[in-house]
Amino acid sequence: MNPNPDNKRRTLLRAASVGGLGAVLAGAAPPALAKPRVRWRMGMAWTRSAPGYTTPVVALADFLDKATGGAFQIEVFGAGDLVPAMQTFDAVLDGTLDCGHGYASYWSGKSIAMNLVMSMPFGTTAQEKNAWLQYGGGQALADKVYERLGAKFFPLGNCGVQPMGWFRKEINSIDDFKGLKFRVSGLPGEVLRECGVAVVGMPLGEVLQAMQSGAVDACELTGPYIDTTLGIQRIAKNYYFPGWHEPEGQFDLFINLDAWNKLSPEYKELVRVGAYYANGVMLNELVAKNGKAFEDLRTQHGVVARLLPDDVLKRMHEITNELLAGAYERDPLARELRDSLRAFLGTAAPYSEYSELLFMQTRASLAGRPRPGA
Amino acid sequence: MNPNPDNKRRTLLRAASVGGLGAVLAGAAPPALAKPRVRWRMGMAWTRSAPGYTTPVVALADFLDKATGGAFQIEVFGAGDLVPAMQTFDAVLDGTLDCGHGYASYWSGKSIAMNLVMSMPFGTTAQEKNAWLQYGGGQALADKVYERLGAKFFPLGNCGVQPMGWFRKEINSIDDFKGLKFRVSGLPGEVLRECGVAVVGMPLGEVLQAMQSGAVDACELTGPYIDTTLGIQRIAKNYYFPGWHEPEGQFDLFINLDAWNKLSPEYKELVRVGAYYANGVMLNELVAKNGKAFEDLRTQHGVVARLLPDDVLKRMHEITNELLAGAYERDPLARELRDSLRAFLGTAAPYSEYSELLFMQTRASLAGRPRPGA
Repeated sequence: MNPNPDNKRRTLLRAASVGGLGAVLAGAAPPALAKPRVRWRMGMAWTRSAPGYTTPVVALADFLDKATGGAFQIEVFGAGDLVPAMQTFDAVLDGTLDCGHGYASYWSGKSIAMNLVMSMPFGTTAQEKNAWLQYGGGQALADKVYERLGAKFFPLGNCGVQPMGWFRKEINSIDDFKGLKFRVSGLPGEVLRECGVAVVGMPLGEVLQAMQSGAVDACELTGPYIDTTLGIQRIAKNYYFPGWHEPEGQFDLFINLDAWNKLSPEYKELVRVGAYYANGVMLNELVAKNGKAFEDLRTQHGVVARLLPDDVLKRMHEITNELLAGAYERDPLARELRDSLRAFLGTAAPYSEYSELLFMQTRASLAGRPRPGA
Repeated sequence: MNPNPDNKRRTLLRAASVGGLGAVLAGAAPPALAKPRVRWRMGMAWTRSAPGYTTPVVALADFLDKATGGAFQIEVFGAGDLVPAMQTFDAVLDGTLDCGHGYASYWSGKSIAMNLVMSMPFGTTAQEKNAWLQYGGGQALADKVYERLGAKFFPLGNCGVQPMGWFRKEINSIDDFKGLKFRVSGLPGEVLRECGVAVVGMPLGEVLQAMQSGAVDACELTGPYIDTTLGIQRIAKNYYFPGWHEPEGQFDLFINLDAWNKLSPEYKELVRVGAYYANGVMLNELVAKNGKAFEDLRTQHGVVARLLPDDVLKRMHEITNELLAGAYERDPLARELRDSLRAFLGTAAPYSEYSELLFMQTRASLAGRPRPGA
């Protein structure tokens, strides 16, 4: 057997093309001609200028472009360019787009299991979620949710712990939530509704005006860096923690199943690895930028970082468990996700307390930093 | 200008090869001939069967293989297969190997800055380190350390917070460290030496026997999953936290600069993204497996998870700062890394306390779990 048939073929080809093309082909660079040309149209559930949200999309598209010498390119469209933000998933299913980028809970109208793909309240951190996706059966479970609808799923960005949000007034008891008009979605919205909140859903781009006009009293956003770029600190000054409701936030890549199935095994591997890589890039950017933004909010914009009272957190925890034992118990896929996440956390969370939590406590204490909220 | 010269070339080539090769070239699959064939020999500082440590190597090698249809392959050698563990870096520099996989502090004899590439005591968590590498100038700084020696650096695995280690006897005060024979390396070893510890360096594979024979009294390893596979729980029962000394542990990919420079831009991008991807895969595996292993150690093997006394941690913190103001101040590259990591942590760490730490505290408290060490 010829141990190196590729080289032989190349040699023959070069010999056969000694005419006008010889000079081109003799170059050291690999001839791009061997790579199948793919042009995908991707829709995003935000504008093309949205800071942070677009980072994993750019990271994936750049990677595919560079790794294939330009053969595999993704043309990216923002919300409203081709379809409105909330129609991105449908546009992928019907083939208007080849793939899309969103926030998993945006599609919970199709399956409430999407809310758990996005984040389980009091559930996994981003680091635990990544572990669950790759080593806890998470990728396969998310695939079940998406493939049933006609899409292939990959994680494409995580924003880490989201602050509980921005409030014009202070929260001193569970009663302060009654009648509050709060911009929030997904399962956290269901929990807050049980506390008497008037849940308002709206795209990110409309939140600032709604807070200004009083159409909403409070809003859950993403984190210090992205929130600051919106200008929310000019309107609300109470920034509440902890982010019990979305201890991580999973952005999703959803690919039309036909488009996915048409890819060569090589390209499938590029998309899979590129998506997991870009998933990390988003968190890396936010972890690097949130700290300075948080400092600036507190020192230059009069924002006060506050903690939710313990009894409020206790009540949110009770309601979360009730909902997970209710509608999420009755939906077979949601139940499977809930049980898988809980089983994973059963051993992972106690160890995170000895590893990450204990270390961060020690570091803060020795640096003389006050406890959060103090 | 021809907007698509590649397609024109392909057409001409097919026309020119209608003979014996025509059938091969006309197939739908991309002809592999266009991908330059690369065969790299990689050496590892551990055996080919080392659990966890080899995970990112396999993830990277599999990815390169699949993404190039077998054109880019890495042949992996374990410690001792071609060169001993601690000669892996030299073997890459002299071209015996194309690349290697190790633990950055293993090479601190060449540059003490390597110790900070690996982990700074009381420094970054894995999540913060990843952010620093990609958005805090870390990749460029690590490149400076490695390229000066003749190698290209990429992160290739992180084990997260390492427990302080396994002790046969309890630690009740700083005096209990005096005369203790402790297997540890790098900057943590320098700190412990100042406490009167007899620092012993040895490869992972020799630790169990050294603990059995009494050649060492205590050892720092990796984490519950990997430690358990070594069988250390049969010999020592005191497992100490927090991991102040290595709040993350950076495994490194070092590539012979000539081998790196010979790669096409496409292959460079595959290696870069593949390494960052595989860097995450290692942590994902450990986060997924450490929890169960930790539970089993405590419930089935009589291991007690203990906390270092506060005054011990305070002293370790003081010594760390003294060393960072001493030898690490005098080494220009080490100083640059130290300053960069500190500047990054200056804003990132306080926010991690409001985001990850506060959330994990809340989750533990509401689940009714006792505080670590209680």
